[in-house]
Amino acid sequence: MKKIKSGIYGLNPLLDGGVNPNSTTVIIGPAGAGKTTFATQFLRKGLEEQKPGVYISLDENKEQIIKEAEEMGWANIKHYLEKKLLLFIDASGKKFAQFIREDLPDFIQKWEGADARIVIDPLTPVMWAIKDKYEQRELLSYLFKETRRIGTVVCTLEEHGSEPNLTGQEVVIPMYLADCVIHLRYQILDDEEKRALKIIKCRSSRHSKFYHNYKIIRGLGLMLQKFPLEIKGTKKIPDKLKKDIKKNSKLRPHQYQDFVKNLDLLIDDDFNGLAYDEISNNIINEIDE
Amino acid sequence: MKKIKSGIYGLNPLLDGGVNPNSTTVIIGPAGAGKTTFATQFLRKGLEEQKPGVYISLDENKEQIIKEAEEMGWANIKHYLEKKLLLFIDASGKKFAQFIREDLPDFIQKWEGADARIVIDPLTPVMWAIKDKYEQRELLSYLFKETRRIGTVVCTLEEHGSEPNLTGQEVVIPMYLADCVIHLRYQILDDEEKRALKIIKCRSSRHSKFYHNYKIIRGLGLMLQKFPLEIKGTKKIPDKLKKDIKKNSKLRPHQYQDFVKNLDLLIDDDFNGLAYDEISNNIINEIDE
Amino acid sequence: MKKIKSGIYGLNPLLDGGVNPNSTTVIIGPAGAGKTTFATQFLRKGLEEQKPGVYISLDENKEQIIKEAEEMGWANIKHYLEKKLLLFIDASGKKFAQFIREDLPDFIQKWEGADARIVIDPLTPVMWAIKDKYEQRELLSYLFKETRRIGTVVCTLEEHGSEPNLTGQEVVIPMYLADCVIHLRYQILDDEEKRALKIIKCRSSRHSKFYHNYKIIRGLGLMLQKFPLEIKGTKKIPDKLKKDIKKNSKLRPHQYQDFVKNLDLLIDDDFNGLAYDEISNNIINEIDE
Amino acid sequence: MKKIKSGIYGLNPLLDGGVNPNSTTVIIGPAGAGKTTFATQFLRKGLEEQKPGVYISLDENKEQIIKEAEEMGWANIKHYLEKKLLLFIDASGKKFAQFIREDLPDFIQKWEGADARIVIDPLTPVMWAIKDKYEQRELLSYLFKETRRIGTVVCTLEEHGSEPNLTGQEVVIPMYLADCVIHLRYQILDDEEKRALKIIKCRSSRHSKFYHNYKIIRGLGLMLQKFPLEIKGTKKIPDKLKKDIKKNSKLRPHQYQDFVKNLDLLIDDDFNGLAYDEISNNIINEIDE
Amino acid sequence: MKKIKSGIYGLNPLLDGGVNPNSTTVIIGPAGAGKTTFATQFLRKGLEEQKPGVYISLDENKEQIIKEAEEMGWANIKHYLEKKLLLFIDASGKKFAQFIREDLPDFIQKWEGADARIVIDPLTPVMWAIKDKYEQRELLSYLFKETRRIGTVVCTLEEHGSEPNLTGQEVVIPMYLADCVIHLRYQILDDEEKRALKIIKCRSSRHSKFYHNYKIIRGLGLMLQKFPLEIKGTKKIPDKLKKDIKKNSKLRPHQYQDFVKNLDLLIDDDFNGLAYDEISNNIINEIDE
Amino acid sequence: MKKIKSGIYGLNPLLDGGVNPNSTTVIIGPAGAGKTTFATQFLRKGLEEQKPGVYISLDENKEQIIKEAEEMGWANIKHYLEKKLLLFIDASGKKFAQFIREDLPDFIQKWEGADARIVIDPLTPVMWAIKDKYEQRELLSYLFKETRRIGTVVCTLEEHGSEPNLTGQEVVIPMYLADCVIHLRYQILDDEEKRALKIIKCRSSRHSKFYHNYKIIRGLGLMLQKFPLEIKGTKKIPDKLKKDIKKNSKLRPHQYQDFVKNLDLLIDDDFNGLAYDEISNNIINEIDE
Repeated sequence: MKKIKSGIYGLNPLLDGGVNPNSTTVIIGPAGAGKTTFATQFLRKGLEEQKPGVYISLDENKEQIIKEAEEMGWANIKHYLEKKLLLFIDASGKKFAQFIREDLPDFIQKWEGADARIVIDPLTPVMWAIKDKYEQRELLSYLFKETRRIGTVVCTLEEHGSEPNLTGQEVVIPMYLADCVIHLRYQILDDEEKRALKIIKCRSSRHSKFYHNYKIIRGLGLMLQKFPLEIKGTKKIPDKLKKDIKKNSKLRPHQYQDFVKNLDLLIDDDFNGLAYDEISNNIINEIDE
Repeated sequence: MKKIKSGIYGLNPLLDGGVNPNSTTVIIGPAGAGKTTFATQFLRKGLEEQKPGVYISLDENKEQIIKEAEEMGWANIKHYLEKKLLLFIDASGKKFAQFIREDLPDFIQKWEGADARIVIDPLTPVMWAIKDKYEQRELLSYLFKETRRIGTVVCTLEEHGSEPNLTGQEVVIPMYLADCVIHLRYQILDDEEKRALKIIKCRSSRHSKFYHNYKIIRGLGLMLQKFPLEIKGTKKIPDKLKKDIKKNSKLRPHQYQDFVKNLDLLIDDDFNGLAYDEISNNIINEIDE
Repeated sequence: MKKIKSGIYGLNPLLDGGVNPNSTTVIIGPAGAGKTTFATQFLRKGLEEQKPGVYISLDENKEQIIKEAEEMGWANIKHYLEKKLLLFIDASGKKFAQFIREDLPDFIQKWEGADARIVIDPLTPVMWAIKDKYEQRELLSYLFKETRRIGTVVCTLEEHGSEPNLTGQEVVIPMYLADCVIHLRYQILDDEEKRALKIIKCRSSRHSKFYHNYKIIRGLGLMLQKFPLEIKGTKKIPDKLKKDIKKNSKLRPHQYQDFVKNLDLLIDDDFNGLAYDEISNNIINEIDE
Repeated sequence: MKKIKSGIYGLNPLLDGGVNPNSTTVIIGPAGAGKTTFATQFLRKGLEEQKPGVYISLDENKEQIIKEAEEMGWANIKHYLEKKLLLFIDASGKKFAQFIREDLPDFIQKWEGADARIVIDPLTPVMWAIKDKYEQRELLSYLFKETRRIGTVVCTLEEHGSEPNLTGQEVVIPMYLADCVIHLRYQILDDEEKRALKIIKCRSSRHSKFYHNYKIIRGLGLMLQKFPLEIKGTKKIPDKLKKDIKKNSKLRPHQYQDFVKNLDLLIDDDFNGLAYDEISNNIINEIDE
Repeated sequence: MKKIKSGIYGLNPLLDGGVNPNSTTVIIGPAGAGKTTFATQFLRKGLEEQKPGVYISLDENKEQIIKEAEEMGWANIKHYLEKKLLLFIDASGKKFAQFIREDLPDFIQKWEGADARIVIDPLTPVMWAIKDKYEQRELLSYLFKETRRIGTVVCTLEEHGSEPNLTGQEVVIPMYLADCVIHLRYQILDDEEKRALKIIKCRSSRHSKFYHNYKIIRGLGLMLQKFPLEIKGTKKIPDKLKKDIKKNSKLRPHQYQDFVKNLDLLIDDDFNGLAYDEISNNIINEIDE
Repeated sequence: MKKIKSGIYGLNPLLDGGVNPNSTTVIIGPAGAGKTTFATQFLRKGLEEQKPGVYISLDENKEQIIKEAEEMGWANIKHYLEKKLLLFIDASGKKFAQFIREDLPDFIQKWEGADARIVIDPLTPVMWAIKDKYEQRELLSYLFKETRRIGTVVCTLEEHGSEPNLTGQEVVIPMYLADCVIHLRYQILDDEEKRALKIIKCRSSRHSKFYHNYKIIRGLGLMLQKFPLEIKGTKKIPDKLKKDIKKNSKLRPHQYQDFVKNLDLLIDDDFNGLAYDEISNNIINEIDE
């Protein structure tokens, strides 16, 4: 799968190269964590690669967002807006919820094949415009399914509470439905402030499992602090397993062929923490009837 | 009772051989714990044993589930779908609730005797579609009773909150009604992530009482980390008890015969923690009038 | 008062011989604690003593309960069902609530004098079928008063929450209204599971005040782990008190006679923790005007 | 003020001789603490002193209460019932709330001057029968004002929760409105149970400020464990203050006379913890203009 | 501003001489803290200074309050009532809320210029009579504004919960609207009880910032335990600042004259904790343009 | 951007010179923290610089606010009121909410270009007048957008709870929508009180990230205690980065020119905590395609 560069300095290696195309990524964080900055960096990168962008703003006015994008180094954002390569949509949560219910099919049809980058910033008022959690889930599920078809989506979500808190209904539902969830942790201490980013989940990707410190730098935007270690690509375990299974299991040749395809995709690192004989025993026990 | 292999690497020995046929198993865990992967491994194993499968999806689209199944090593899932050995049903929580109320008898009649493996993934939107906990219980109780008649069922349940939490209404009701409950604990720490599985309850089965670490391995799926110790099958205590009761209790011969049948089924391990004379005293005190 | 044997191995000595006839006992515990097993052991004991049994099931289907009873050693349960010595009633919480309101007088009349053992398992759906706590109390109070007239009742109650928790409305109301309350504590730890039973209250009985470990043993059922110490029956304190009061208080002879009747019922153990002169002072101070 | 003996062994000295006549006492405690036993001891003492008694029961049936009173040593309770010296009223919470609203004036008129002892056991269902806390307060305030006119009242209140908890709405409102509040603390520990009584407030009384252990003894009822120390009645501080004020303050003679009347009522113990010069300074500062 | 003596022994020095005239003071504390005693001491002091008093009671009956006032040493309270110098108003919370809405203007007009002391005891039922916090705030704001015009007001508020707790809606709104807030902390420990008073806020007053222990003494009422230290009145810092500003800032002469008027009102103690150069720098930086 | 002086002694250096013009600042703090004092200092500073002021009061009466302003050293506030340079608006929360919905466009039109300082004190009743959080957000968003057009706005918000707490709905929504958020922390300890101020966020500004102690001084108002260190303006890192990128990246000349503009705006301090090679690696990795 071809990956998409996120536009965030230092993030792509943590995502095994970038974001998956036609996926939905949810960015969660408190006020001041840099969610809007993340979103504009993401759109900018796409535009620099000649992909159209859609910014759906549910809270801020266009002027403030443009001003902050410029402060973060995107000097020519207005150029993209004028050329209509970047579409800016301003709506209230209720209007956007209504738009999803009534006009999304038209919108999707129009953008079919455009391979756009789409930002919804923040998603929170859409959640608030609907009271019932069942309805929230259904609407969001529909929105995610449809927008994934025409491009790659980043949504921001406000995190409430003084402690990092990923358990509110407004946060949990999008987390379950999204393909990729990134937490921007932002802690205001008495004599320091700490920012760290973690990929909570990312479907169909190897990804980092740790919190990574980041800074927000004027003129640049979010920048991650420490380069992650390369993932080691050796294949000793899969190779040894293949021999073991051939020798010890009762699979017929075509069954064996079918099964070892899986092992071909694996590297040693995928098994970390599992002892070799555990793996071997488990597999042979399970595949033999 | 003939057991059914779960399809999860290393799980069957923890369940005294596997899942009970015609039972309902509930899998509980947070986002990213591997619930859908568990469900597809379970269905795949059945299909490989020539049992039909039904996948009732209440959240995801078919494509995403198939894609993830393939990533977890089920290369020929599309083959089963095309041959209609695997039936895929996509419904919203409300529609499925309505289906249970109105169309379940027909469905059950059609599948009578099919001995299918059935997955409901996730059950959560069904719970959300109903507000009142009494109605939730009644509907779920009806669903479980009926589906058990036509096959073996696995349901997944989302676990909300930042800490492992098995106490929400949406979780507690299914836990009470299910025959087997498995918790997938998934903890995201700053510098590590931990997965562990525990069988909370399993009716009519000896089963492991501990948390067992597991990994999710691309191309394979969930794999348990440590092989449980064999359960020791010696029968010293039951044999000694039989003699003791014969000698010391006032049971009449036919009463004695009736009673010792129970002891024949037991092994020493079943009494663990109980001192011999405690057992003996308790039994003789209770059975003598 | 003649006591009734509970059928639970090792429980009767903790209850000063057993359960009181024509009382209501509530068994509280989480999923997996053994509530249904307790209930079936209780019914079985009655049937073996030629007392009819009534099993009111609000959740499970008859088949599952019978199967589990057999696994716990009650091989001939079907025999009792066929002979109609054991009556099995299957109802939803709402229907049973309606039954209490409308049909309980008829039912009571029919069973008058039968001296049956009656199980309601679980009582929880009845509580859930009623929303208002005042109505819950009124209905339950009525149910308990009436059923006590025709026999001895055991009700089970689900305990929710991850910690032992006897404070929910569904639990507190039955605890206040019942004659006897038994808590089955069941804790699932990482590397161990612990079961312990405690008699929270038991009207008109001396009873154990501690938690007692128990096990659930296939073929037998609940068995308590440690035999309680005999209650010592010496009467030194009451005898000394009688003399003291005769000598030091200003009671007239007939008042003295009336009062010391109470002391005749007491044993030393009843005063545990109270120093002799405290007792003596308190009594003489209070009874003298 | 003439005090009324409570009937509880060892309690009267803690209340400076007993309960105040024409006051309302609220007894709060969890299931098993002995609230009903307290209530019956209180009524019995009155009847033995030729004062009529009224037992308003909102939960239990008459038979159970009588049985328990007999177990606690009140052998001739039925005699009082037959002679109509003890009136037993059985009502639901809703009916009793309605009675307060509609029939209380009649009831009060009938009992005017009877100087009865009145028990309401438990008050909890009355609170539950009313949803709004404002209405609860108003009704309770009316009930307390009126019943105080015809006698001395004891009400019991259930304490919910696993920890001693005097903060629920059902408990706080009666605590504010009552003249005297007594807490029966009852803790069930793993290997012990602890009972202790504390007088939370008692208007117009010197009273103990500590928790006092008590036991419930069959045939006797509640008995307090430790005799409180005599309150010392010396008057050194008041006498010294009188001289000081006479000498150092600018009060005119008749003002001085008025003021020192207050000091005549005091004993040294009333000032405990206050240094002499603090008292003296504060008083002279405040009374001099 | 002329201060008003509170009538509480030892409190006035903590309030820089007493309560401000035409202000609203809120007294918050749990049952038994002495709120009613505080209120009667406050009224009594006014009457002794020939100011009329109004006691608005929302809970208690007049008789009980008078009785307790007498116990606290106010022997001639009935005299004031008879002379109509002390007006006693008895109302329910709802009636008083209605009175505020409809009849307050008349009442205010009648008492215009009377310079009365007014007590509302407790304010809690007024808060309960209104459900919506917005309405509570509006009504209370109106009550406080109007009553301040005709005198000096003391309101009591019940504090609920087992721990000191100033965060409930019923407490927070009055705290925001009142001019002066005094907390009576009352803790019931196992073997001790502790009372302490703290002035939470007092507009336009220097006041103590600590908790001060107090006792309630029969015949006297609330008495504070420790005399606060005199506030030191030296003016070294303000004098030095004046010279500094004259010399180092660019203020024109008339601007300087305007500014130093503020410094004339200050004493050294007002700056406590601030280093001299911090003050000087901050001021010169800010006032120079 | 030209900054606006706040009027608070010692605050401007923490805000890189002051408040941004045409921004909205929210001041959050508990009762007694000095929110109203902050607001009047802010207005006064503007009036002294010949900018008109608008004080929208939702709680207090004009008189009290003027009195407190005078106590804090603003001797000639009445002069500004008389000259109509300072406009005082008194409204309830509901009326002001209605004003926003209906009359805000007129108001904005009238004040267009006035460059006023506007205070809303407190904003809390507006939040309370609206129940639904979605409506709260929409109304507030509209209010903030419009008022920013005609001047610089300061709103105060009450902080409820005994602990500093920035998580209530009434606080979180304004925090998300405001440009600048300042927390006034005020802790009442037993023997001390502590005040500290922190700038939680400030869009488009470098600002202090720490809590700074402050005092409220009669005649002066809020004064910060410690002067923050100068922010160092050296540019070593940006200069070195420019060379590095020129040499090592594959950017074409015009792309390089575009990019380094961002670096020109930066000083070393902006990168604090990031090692040079991290920055360099991240940037080159991201900008090269």
